[in-house]
Amino acid sequence: MIPSELRKDPLSSRWVIIAAERAKRPTDFDTDSIGDPPVFDPFSPGNEDKTPPEIASYRKSGTLPNKAGWRVRVVPNKYPALQIEGGLNKRGEGIYDRMQGVGAHEVIIDTPECAPSFTGSTDEHVQEVLWMYRDRLVDLSRDKRLKYGMLFKNVGRAAGATVYHSHSQLIVMPIVPDLIEEKLAACKKFFDYRGRCLLCDIALQELEQKSRLIVDSGQFIAFAPYAARTPFETCIVPKNHASHFESINQPLCEELAYILKRTMAKIEKGLKNVAYNYMFFTAPFHAGEQPHFHWHIELVPRLTRQAGFEWGTGFHINPVPPEDAAEFLRSVKI
Amino acid sequence: MIPSELRKDPLSSRWVIIAAERAKRPTDFDTDSIGDPPVFDPFSPGNEDKTPPEIASYRKSGTLPNKAGWRVRVVPNKYPALQIEGGLNKRGEGIYDRMQGVGAHEVIIDTPECAPSFTGSTDEHVQEVLWMYRDRLVDLSRDKRLKYGMLFKNVGRAAGATVYHSHSQLIVMPIVPDLIEEKLAACKKFFDYRGRCLLCDIALQELEQKSRLIVDSGQFIAFAPYAARTPFETCIVPKNHASHFESINQPLCEELAYILKRTMAKIEKGLKNVAYNYMFFTAPFHAGEQPHFHWHIELVPRLTRQAGFEWGTGFHINPVPPEDAAEFLRSVKI
Repeated sequence: MIPSELRKDPLSSRWVIIAAERAKRPTDFDTDSIGDPPVFDPFSPGNEDKTPPEIASYRKSGTLPNKAGWRVRVVPNKYPALQIEGGLNKRGEGIYDRMQGVGAHEVIIDTPECAPSFTGSTDEHVQEVLWMYRDRLVDLSRDKRLKYGMLFKNVGRAAGATVYHSHSQLIVMPIVPDLIEEKLAACKKFFDYRGRCLLCDIALQELEQKSRLIVDSGQFIAFAPYAARTPFETCIVPKNHASHFESINQPLCEELAYILKRTMAKIEKGLKNVAYNYMFFTAPFHAGEQPHFHWHIELVPRLTRQAGFEWGTGFHINPVPPEDAAEFLRSVKI
Repeated sequence: MIPSELRKDPLSSRWVIIAAERAKRPTDFDTDSIGDPPVFDPFSPGNEDKTPPEIASYRKSGTLPNKAGWRVRVVPNKYPALQIEGGLNKRGEGIYDRMQGVGAHEVIIDTPECAPSFTGSTDEHVQEVLWMYRDRLVDLSRDKRLKYGMLFKNVGRAAGATVYHSHSQLIVMPIVPDLIEEKLAACKKFFDYRGRCLLCDIALQELEQKSRLIVDSGQFIAFAPYAARTPFETCIVPKNHASHFESINQPLCEELAYILKRTMAKIEKGLKNVAYNYMFFTAPFHAGEQPHFHWHIELVPRLTRQAGFEWGTGFHINPVPPEDAAEFLRSVKI
């Protein structure tokens, strides 16, 4: 009987149960299918009038906005969680607090191809997607009402994707979300005590220990977090300290495209087209370079379902030790 | 265009986006089926040898443990997240922290019937289930290594249930989980400032406003929380202050069975056998009666999927305003 273990994630300060007793191999999971290509694809070239008018695009020179010819295209979300117009209008209602849902909710259509992700695209194309992420963050960070931008991608229905065609989303908010505040606070506490950045230290330890390392591309590493919440959760960090993703330069962006695409391809191939999410964690707007916060990407395959225990306690139960997950993903040939 | 709204849940201190722009009616959701009865049911009477030996049961007098004749039966989880043996053995690993997974993981088989929940049982039977919850908490709270007990129920595969036959689970942990610590801290802050219990105030405001009230049974209310995270989320609280569920008496337990069964029946019938979870929030063990913490139950129908945004920010996007959800559940005839 292998005893289970509680591990603490230093970034979120949350404990995770690594339940080796429930240990599973990648083939033991009952994965939800990523779905089939749709009969009608609103994100395909030629259907530009089926989305709200575009905010930005990279397109063949000579082609017109809202017409075919684009490689990457950004449109407002048709059903936005937050809207750009209006003031915050903070107010109380008895003991409760509310404010207006001011912000931006944009959809980045990653590729003209009707594929569930961009792992079939060239590295140069993925680089353009990442550069568009940067452009949109830089543009929206100029709005002084807005405090934080969360870039994320849902691949597959079980991961929350409602459109099959590969797309990313950017939600920009008038407040810094709690989970980000908690990460910032944990990083600040570590920095104040040790005078070093937590993620710089994590990257060093992962490079030394090697047991959780998945890809080392030179300037970036992909690794299984020590207290991974789900089987095959993966984190990508730049080795050199930087607090804002949007301050990335072209050569680094080129390498990020390389490691991100390969990490995604390993997850997709190794876990039989599992649904997954990724999220970019960058420092809040208007903050200047932060010595304690280090931008990073989390990729979360959706192999387990959140049940009452996770909802109630915030604890996750992960049946695959991160060392085993990393060993498996390292072995996946792409 | 209805603007979306950010609402803050005073208990968890988290903001939720109520996105009326995405407003949906109960029939608009694509609910995952609760599943079909299994060919083989390990929790049926006669199959007692298919589970680990029982810890406790309420059974017909004259029948033997681990044989048929039980009404409610408790067994250890076959694949426990935590084990009762051993010490915590806290230690570091470079910058990381870990400890042994000490605790208890029990399964309460609610009923001999092979049904997905106990809404088909009599009120007296549901009362026995709740009394067994109480018994197990009281028993496990005697172990000084253990700090917190989370009682929960997963109904349906999409809510994390791996066995169709109605059952509840109790996980008892060597630490107080972060989400509970956060709730305790929010309640303590409110109490220190106002000299009153937060949930006592919430119950009063919900009774006055009525717009989010679903059932008022006399000693308990069921209501849609002001900052509900998911469509049709429901909270049940006793009107009179008490910090520990396990200190409940028989008459109050009888009424809790009444309101819990009816609230579950409204959710099951109104939302077409949606998968859902419930969780009991009680104060930590060994704490004595707490003037600031008020035990309660959260019921969470699983109509929306957590996507990258929720994973990254901790924000939830709820397309159904709680006032509309409560109006709908009030109208469901059971």
